[in-house]
Amino acid sequence: MAWESAVEIVEVGPRDGLQNESTLVTTEVKVAYIRALVDAGVRRIEATSFVHPRRVPQMADAEAVMAGVPRRAGLSYIGLVVNGRGLERALDAGVDEVNAVVVATETFSQRNQGMSIAEAVRSFAAISGSAHDGGLRVTATIGSSFGCPFEGEVAPATVAELARRCADAGADEIALADTIGVGVPADVDRLVDAVREVTGLPLRFHFHNTRNTGYANALRAVARGAAALDSSGGGIGGCPFAPAATGNIATEDLAYALRRSGVASGLDHHKLIDAAALIERELGIRLPALLGRAGDFPAAQPGRTGDVPS
Amino acid sequence: MAWESAVEIVEVGPRDGLQNESTLVTTEVKVAYIRALVDAGVRRIEATSFVHPRRVPQMADAEAVMAGVPRRAGLSYIGLVVNGRGLERALDAGVDEVNAVVVATETFSQRNQGMSIAEAVRSFAAISGSAHDGGLRVTATIGSSFGCPFEGEVAPATVAELARRCADAGADEIALADTIGVGVPADVDRLVDAVREVTGLPLRFHFHNTRNTGYANALRAVARGAAALDSSGGGIGGCPFAPAATGNIATEDLAYALRRSGVASGLDHHKLIDAAALIERELGIRLPALLGRAGDFPAAQPGRTGDVPS
Repeated sequence: MAWESAVEIVEVGPRDGLQNESTLVTTEVKVAYIRALVDAGVRRIEATSFVHPRRVPQMADAEAVMAGVPRRAGLSYIGLVVNGRGLERALDAGVDEVNAVVVATETFSQRNQGMSIAEAVRSFAAISGSAHDGGLRVTATIGSSFGCPFEGEVAPATVAELARRCADAGADEIALADTIGVGVPADVDRLVDAVREVTGLPLRFHFHNTRNTGYANALRAVARGAAALDSSGGGIGGCPFAPAATGNIATEDLAYALRRSGVASGLDHHKLIDAAALIERELGIRLPALLGRAGDFPAAQPGRTGDVPS
Repeated sequence: MAWESAVEIVEVGPRDGLQNESTLVTTEVKVAYIRALVDAGVRRIEATSFVHPRRVPQMADAEAVMAGVPRRAGLSYIGLVVNGRGLERALDAGVDEVNAVVVATETFSQRNQGMSIAEAVRSFAAISGSAHDGGLRVTATIGSSFGCPFEGEVAPATVAELARRCADAGADEIALADTIGVGVPADVDRLVDAVREVTGLPLRFHFHNTRNTGYANALRAVARGAAALDSSGGGIGGCPFAPAATGNIATEDLAYALRRSGVASGLDHHKLIDAAALIERELGIRLPALLGRAGDFPAAQPGRTGDVPS
């Protein structure tokens, strides 16, 4: 297998992770979590969501979070936006990029966003235009690319067609999300093949480990040339459609697997474990991430080839 | 990626799983667990270990387990043996196959088996000869093929050389075990490449999900032509060298991933979930397996292509 030499990690714990945990944490904790993740080498962070606080109370402090995070060259903060009002807030708060979601099936689009796919693409085009006017990079995340909780199977051709429409609507990056954690590496292959036929935009993937396939999918995506992978420090989060399930793939476990695969990620998984421990204490949960419990390998050879620079 | 069309699952929960759980279960529970796994389509089962009961009290009822399991054509029961006395017991108990372990590093071999690698290979040759005389198939499992808790990195060439010696000593199958759960798919590639240079014997793999890489490794092994994969119903087990870690990869989660990958395993993962629930109740633990909590996908389309025959 030909492994790509590097992949970019997009830390989504502060947004997708915390949004799907039942415990509310303070702005100070969010900022401390982000700071610890940045200390561990994370350079691109989905920090918050600019949605109506009645809809997602966990993200009501979006502006305060953005005011508190460390800012320096090379760090890029992403805000999730769902409409023009959210984009204005994101611009005012000083995000570096925006992420907007369209969903691959009509049923999920109606239930999740209250609009048809066609309406969602038009909304994305409007967000994208305004974001570009404001100098921001825009990602189109295609939700339920690997399967829908309402409609079941989703054809790769359907996802590819939606990716093409998002590219036409101004996306700078396409993120394929396994929203409910049902995908397998063969699905990654099929989606990469289909989407690559319609766009050369950088591909980002978003995996949940709901059925223990998330890490296999992530490593397969890297092998197939993915530019970026989403993950959450500690593996926090989950999905409102599978409440008992685990969350996003964990940044530290992913960093371990990437380092052992010879793929550079720029992450220090020892410091990532510290960041995860911080949020584990605050949430009072047992993290789905395993590296912090199992320990590194090899354990006692700090000078070996392949260790992350720190 | 070219996917093999089928892989054989070796259920190791009754042996590797229960041996590494702190709770002792009765013979009746073991037999009920095995019966439920057989009902779910498992055809090859590492049922017990013929070791001294002082060393592994969990396996003290080896003969009673073998006397209680369902026997019929097409079902093959494996006994783990460590010496000639164990082999005699296994033959008397009516196992169909034996499995014997050699370890890839001198330190682990001495600590785990109290002998050098050379002595372990000689012991394997003696076991193999007697087993063949008794009409039994013999597997050589190479422990710590992916890394050693004492010596760290293990070179694929070292594992391949040991595989060659085991093949010369009469092995009918080579099993490469990631005893401490440190491997990644790139390691699977390297090991398959190295071992395939020295033997054409069927390859079996044994993965623990200690650092969340077990399923990725298993799917990669299938893609690289592995004939068989070990897993445990519910993901029970673990490793005495990483006590807080998860156990074997779970049979039901593996069965889900294989079905979604278009790889036939002959397993009904709904019935596997029932088997896992049985042992979960008895052990009083929360299983590392996720499928039983997350549910199948797609959820409500029983007639779809790719469903397991039941």
